[in-house]
Amino acid sequence: MAGQGGSSAGGRGVVISDNWPGYSLDLFTYPQHYYGDLEYVLIPHGIIVDRTERLAKDIMQDIGDNDIVVLCVLKGGYKFCADLVEHIKNLSRNSERFISMKVDFVRLKSYHNDQSMQDMQIIGGDDLSKLTGKPQGCSQSGWESQSFPQAPNSCIQLSTQQCPWGTAHHRAVADDIVGTGRTMKVLLNNIEKYKPKMIKVASLLVKRTSRPDGYRPDYYGFEIPDLFVVGYALDYNEHFRDLNHICVINDHGKTKYRV
Amino acid sequence: MAGQGGSSAGGRGVVISDNWPGYSLDLFTYPQHYYGDLEYVLIPHGIIVDRTERLAKDIMQDIGDNDIVVLCVLKGGYKFCADLVEHIKNLSRNSERFISMKVDFVRLKSYHNDQSMQDMQIIGGDDLSKLTGKPQGCSQSGWESQSFPQAPNSCIQLSTQQCPWGTAHHRAVADDIVGTGRTMKVLLNNIEKYKPKMIKVASLLVKRTSRPDGYRPDYYGFEIPDLFVVGYALDYNEHFRDLNHICVINDHGKTKYRV
Amino acid sequence: MAGQGGSSAGGRGVVISDNWPGYSLDLFTYPQHYYGDLEYVLIPHGIIVDRTERLAKDIMQDIGDNDIVVLCVLKGGYKFCADLVEHIKNLSRNSERFISMKVDFVRLKSYHNDQSMQDMQIIGGDDLSKLTGKPQGCSQSGWESQSFPQAPNSCIQLSTQQCPWGTAHHRAVADDIVGTGRTMKVLLNNIEKYKPKMIKVASLLVKRTSRPDGYRPDYYGFEIPDLFVVGYALDYNEHFRDLNHICVINDHGKTKYRV
Amino acid sequence: MAGQGGSSAGGRGVVISDNWPGYSLDLFTYPQHYYGDLEYVLIPHGIIVDRTERLAKDIMQDIGDNDIVVLCVLKGGYKFCADLVEHIKNLSRNSERFISMKVDFVRLKSYHNDQSMQDMQIIGGDDLSKLTGKPQGCSQSGWESQSFPQAPNSCIQLSTQQCPWGTAHHRAVADDIVGTGRTMKVLLNNIEKYKPKMIKVASLLVKRTSRPDGYRPDYYGFEIPDLFVVGYALDYNEHFRDLNHICVINDHGKTKYRV
Repeated sequence: MAGQGGSSAGGRGVVISDNWPGYSLDLFTYPQHYYGDLEYVLIPHGIIVDRTERLAKDIMQDIGDNDIVVLCVLKGGYKFCADLVEHIKNLSRNSERFISMKVDFVRLKSYHNDQSMQDMQIIGGDDLSKLTGKPQGCSQSGWESQSFPQAPNSCIQLSTQQCPWGTAHHRAVADDIVGTGRTMKVLLNNIEKYKPKMIKVASLLVKRTSRPDGYRPDYYGFEIPDLFVVGYALDYNEHFRDLNHICVINDHGKTKYRV
Repeated sequence: MAGQGGSSAGGRGVVISDNWPGYSLDLFTYPQHYYGDLEYVLIPHGIIVDRTERLAKDIMQDIGDNDIVVLCVLKGGYKFCADLVEHIKNLSRNSERFISMKVDFVRLKSYHNDQSMQDMQIIGGDDLSKLTGKPQGCSQSGWESQSFPQAPNSCIQLSTQQCPWGTAHHRAVADDIVGTGRTMKVLLNNIEKYKPKMIKVASLLVKRTSRPDGYRPDYYGFEIPDLFVVGYALDYNEHFRDLNHICVINDHGKTKYRV
Repeated sequence: MAGQGGSSAGGRGVVISDNWPGYSLDLFTYPQHYYGDLEYVLIPHGIIVDRTERLAKDIMQDIGDNDIVVLCVLKGGYKFCADLVEHIKNLSRNSERFISMKVDFVRLKSYHNDQSMQDMQIIGGDDLSKLTGKPQGCSQSGWESQSFPQAPNSCIQLSTQQCPWGTAHHRAVADDIVGTGRTMKVLLNNIEKYKPKMIKVASLLVKRTSRPDGYRPDYYGFEIPDLFVVGYALDYNEHFRDLNHICVINDHGKTKYRV
Repeated sequence: MAGQGGSSAGGRGVVISDNWPGYSLDLFTYPQHYYGDLEYVLIPHGIIVDRTERLAKDIMQDIGDNDIVVLCVLKGGYKFCADLVEHIKNLSRNSERFISMKVDFVRLKSYHNDQSMQDMQIIGGDDLSKLTGKPQGCSQSGWESQSFPQAPNSCIQLSTQQCPWGTAHHRAVADDIVGTGRTMKVLLNNIEKYKPKMIKVASLLVKRTSRPDGYRPDYYGFEIPDLFVVGYALDYNEHFRDLNHICVINDHGKTKYRV
């Protein structure tokens, strides 16, 4: 019954309502070179830490005694993934549990004007790159990937019987943001060919968009309005990755870092 | 213009409005022995960390190149004070600044039925205990000190010319909560006898009470409604100090830990 | 068979041998105002963190399902105690364990020329101050308490049937340093009058002195040579508490901060 | 004059001598599933944290007011890189400095039997993958890459005038380990084609090998003996990435995780 910004915290994530005004920037510290470029703090860094700790606990409970492979979706998911992995390590180190964990990285890219996502390029991820067969040149991630929300960066949990990384592993994909979920579906389709025992997707953010397509990750940190957000490894044309908090960019920032 | 819970974040702290519903407890981790005792999370631990980092930066900027003595008001202020000191140490370690810092501890206690606070006992704080001359027995801190909000636990920044700890130091008192501020005023009166160069009070929380008496600390983290809060070293009859987040206790919890 | 500085890591702590040269100061960061005052880093901050995490795990295992009261011995023990408590909270928050924890503070002081310790003053610690009945004026802690090592600052774990804080609690005393252990014995004698169920003493450091008197805490982080060490809340005339690492002071530092 | 394990801490890193016995495993916490697989702790996690904080400070000082691009060499360098980036962000957030930072990822792979490294594959790294033109299939990283030390995982700092990521950036490559440095040289050759303004390589570890080839990174955390080490993202056949400390694997561990 209690949520953030006056709305309810339903299901499995913190729900940030559309009328949530955020936090004034001068309540926290942030890099000087972004002074004037941001509207407000949507999610302060520390609450991401707290929420991720709980996600790690939930994931570990669901996984049982199976091994886990965390697949980090670069670049936007690297911070969420690194922190999720740290929390899982902390649980593993301080418990009687017996869960080994591997980490891998994958990179998803898409053409700006191609919403069908069929030309998505997956690079990295040990043998995962063999899955797509389309290693063409690809565009920069950035603003456009937010205007047409495509969840370009992720981190999933999956489990596989015949999997590229070995056998019968559970896998976790740590994702930074899910818009329509179209990109994530392409990735999952590729992974599912390998008959994983279990696949779970953890996404830090889920955006409420006008074009929902039914996809929702198994775990997520926050459900947010359809805003352009930066920080905590989320970028606008490669900027703002070095910002701790998740913030809403302002017009000055958009103009300054446009390419 | 941006605040928490729909209200504005005015002045120098995060303002949590009266209609802020808080966060559902199952969004975060917290100790099993408090399951069922809490209503909701008012302030997640990580936001406290972020906000305290900014307070440390503000304090350091105002202090200039003067030495600092941090006076931690036990017991409720020990966590806030410890974290504030860590942030200041971090600033000191990584900057070109040249600010030495000392740490001291003081304990304020008051009789339940004595709202005049004149019998406040100060124990600890090197020679500070000499200031009061009234080392009588004293009551437990806890629930009552919240019903009659008296800021029993604090952490101040002061500066003194003839001070018990030396001379001409700037002092910071890290406080966990300020209600009417009556107790803090007694402490400050005692300190001011020593003609400090500068005294600044930093309080994690400021409560909006029906009996405001004009006192407001120089720095504070959050302005909160007049609620019974526990966690982050704030206790109810010595319980809940081992809770990370600042939470609102429920009726079950009140009954369970009543003494 | 593996230890630090070429010696063996026996029993329950890291053994730092007499010929351990330490780490050069320019390998780490530390506050500018201590440049020139230190000889070398004896124990970097991060190893203290790692070792304390293990101590917390060991303590929790030994405690079983009993409640715990951590008694922090000010001032030198506050950092060790705060960190130990954080690690225990982390264990509690992320496990199925059901262990409540309270925190209290005590302050031990002793006369310079009185090695019998019978005039030790205990201040703070709720009703613990009633235990001694000798609230006389007392000297500053500092250099002398190291020359005549008396473990002035600690953090113990005890358990009591009729105890000042309640009943049947296990107690942990977090101590920063143990020399001869004489002061700790006086404290423990006072506590034991209350017939605790279990008392355990955790000390960050144990010094190898020429006058061993048989006392050894139940848990300790590091066994170190008989050196004057500062940092991590350990002071020399109230200085160096704001230093992260445990370092050996040099002659310049001794002269500069002599009182 | 002071170093670790009795040797001197020369130049710009902690020198761990050949006769350093390490720390007994039971002094720290580590995941249960590695019990029995490790010989000892070579470098506890916390000292890596401390050392990396200093490296971040040194790098920031040398960079001046130029922008920085951190290039993380996957997979082994991801933890070092993530932590280095966090320390730099901390410096940026809390100082008056005005240094923007971008992050990119690169992956180096080499054939087992090809010590010439000419067939090295670079995947990821925005347009960096265009540099090599040899996106052939590649072998697993792991044990062999240690037997024939090739620094497969890194994180560099460079600066470029015509660079793939933009222009005139300073770049930092965070590397986990440098053996002969041959792989790093290939990477640097590829980067230098783009006439960077400045390139700096930061490596967590430098191994003393019998086949030195003169390469030494600009910054490094620790110089270690020629041992098989795992942990802190360093793997043996993808295992041990979830181990906090840098440890030496034992025969049992080698057999258990051999592929």
